[in-house]
This record gives sequence, C-alpha cells and structure tokens, in this order.
Amino acid sequence: MTRAVILRIGHRPERDQRVTTHVGLAARALGAEGMYLAEVDKGVVQSINDVVTRWGGTFFCRDGVKWRHCINGWKEKGGTVVHLTMYGLNIPDVIDEIRQKDNVLVIVGAEKVPAEIFGLADYNVSVSSQPHSEISSLAVFLDHLFSGTELTARYPEAKIRIIPSNAGKKTEEV
Amino acid sequence: MTRAVILRIGHRPERDQRVTTHVGLAARALGAEGMYLAEVDKGVVQSINDVVTRWGGTFFCRDGVKWRHCINGWKEKGGTVVHLTMYGLNIPDVIDEIRQKDNVLVIVGAEKVPAEIFGLADYNVSVSSQPHSEISSLAVFLDHLFSGTELTARYPEAKIRIIPSNAGKKTEEV
Repeated sequence: MTRAVILRIGHRPERDQRVTTHVGLAARALGAEGMYLAEVDKGVVQSINDVVTRWGGTFFCRDGVKWRHCINGWKEKGGTVVHLTMYGLNIPDVIDEIRQKDNVLVIVGAEKVPAEIFGLADYNVSVSSQPHSEISSLAVFLDHLFSGTELTARYPEAKIRIIPSNAGKKTEEV
Repeated sequence: MTRAVILRIGHRPERDQRVTTHVGLAARALGAEGMYLAEVDKGVVQSINDVVTRWGGTFFCRDGVKWRHCINGWKEKGGTVVHLTMYGLNIPDVIDEIRQKDNVLVIVGAEKVPAEIFGLADYNVSVSSQPHSEISSLAVFLDHLFSGTELTARYPEAKIRIIPSNAGKKTEEV
C-alpha cells in the first residue's frame, strides 16, 4: 500500500491560512499520512491538530520545514516526489505508474513555486491541464492514488463519528 | 451524459471570495456546466469569466441567484438536487444511482447551511464522512460522477492550452 505525505510550499502566513488548512484537511480525509508545511504557521497546525483530536486517526502536521531539505531527504530514502502543477503530465497518463511506488511525497504549491521544484520532482502531475485549485487537484490526485479506498477508512481514537444519513446531521460520541 | 451545475450558498463577500472562486474553477475543470452563486459578488464572476475567456469552454457563472427559487425551479423541471455535506450518505454508496440522472444541481455550502437544504435535496452526499473542504468534496464528487472522463476534456475557443510536460511550463497560443 502506497504511503503519501504532503509538502505544502509557498504558503504565506495570514493570507493562505484558510486554503492551507483546507489542503491539510483534504489530505487527511483522503488518505495521506501527514503534511509538512514549509513555513511557520501555528494557526494551521492547531486547526489540523484539533480535527485529528476530535475525529481520530494519526495525521500529523509539522510546520517550519525546509522544503529543499525535505525533498532531498525523501529522495535519499528512495521515496518518490510528485509535484502537482497544472503544467504537468495529466494524471490519467501517470497515475498507474505512481501507484506502484511505496512512498510518495506530494508537493502542493501556492501561486508561485520556485522553478527548481519542477526539476527536483520525479513526476510533475496535472489534474486536467486546466487552472483550478491546489485543494481540488490534491483531492483528485489522492483519490486516484488510493483508488477510492480511502473514502471508507476508519479513524481510530475518534471522539466523534458521523452516522451517514440522507436526512440531517447524525453523529455518535465514541 | 449527466449534466451538473453548481449552486454555491452561504458565500460571504470578501471573506469567501477566494474559496468560492476555487469552487467555481474546480467545477469548470472537472466537468460542470456552470455555477449559480447565491450572493452578489462581481469579483468572483469576473475571476471565473477571465479564466473562461482565456482557457476556453462555455462554463457560466451567475451571481445574485436566490437559492430557494433555484432549487425549486430545478426540481420542477425534473432535475436532481445533490447537497454535499459531511453528514450525508457516503459517495461510494450513492454515486452509481446519481450517475443515472440527467440533470444534477450540486449544492456547495460554506460553513453554515440552512437546515432546510437537507430536506430540499434529493441526496445529501458526503465525501468520506470526515471534515475537510467544500473544494475537495466537490472535486471528488464531480470526478466520480463523470468517472474521470472530464480529465481529458477539450475546451473549445481557448486562447491558450497547456502542453503536458514533466519538465516545466509549456503552453501554446491557439
């Protein structure tokens, strides 16, 4: 089973706090193990940790990570680096190959990404070759990587769970 | 072939402008026909229209829409209403049924959604029964609805196209 960890780069504290928190929560809900944030932002870390405490699982969020060090360390250990960019190879053409890898670092950039990232990545991958959002790109990428199996995962040590319903909000305290 | 149109509700001008623009762009890139915005926000409309002008296709964005009127009108014409909410039925359990429908209105709420929406919707649908982002939920929902076929769609009348590449940014003027 492939492991995926996110590396969020280009995050601007304050301005990007909400979007980066969404990136982290989407990563968690769609099967990633954790997120490295290449910037110091305790607000993002706190928001994500609060969700983990309440909703369970072992997703981690670490800020203040140096991106070049993170990428090179990942590669030195034999891991695969995927950079999500609208300029990359379209996901249907590469996902089968990436799914064979054991450890995937998924780089999710904000608006400006250093050109160096394209060269450091093993795969530059696009979701549709159209402009949209790093959140939607990451979501589709992870869902394809895990073939939808992540959608029914159980989260150990949750304090609350949703009872799926067509009629309203039903939850159970665990 | 199913048609999908987004209804974005609960948008707060200024505060939600970036997230709602991402919702619209994800909708466009992942095969929806357009977005109704239940609020007046010309900034969102302008951003999305700018993308359509440059990148092609016929995606529409209309603001100032009254949500109750929009939903009821859709239903009167025989369309199906799907509300994306983390409390809903998990997508793997309902997507095959929804895929049989011809016209799907996808309601995408912000943080607070009127309780009435749960009752108006034919389907309340969750992507994973975990908290994440309306952008990632919409992305996975549309990708499942269209079975990934939307990822390779062509956008007529584009001024620019990406030439997918593993090495950098390649585009062509059309």
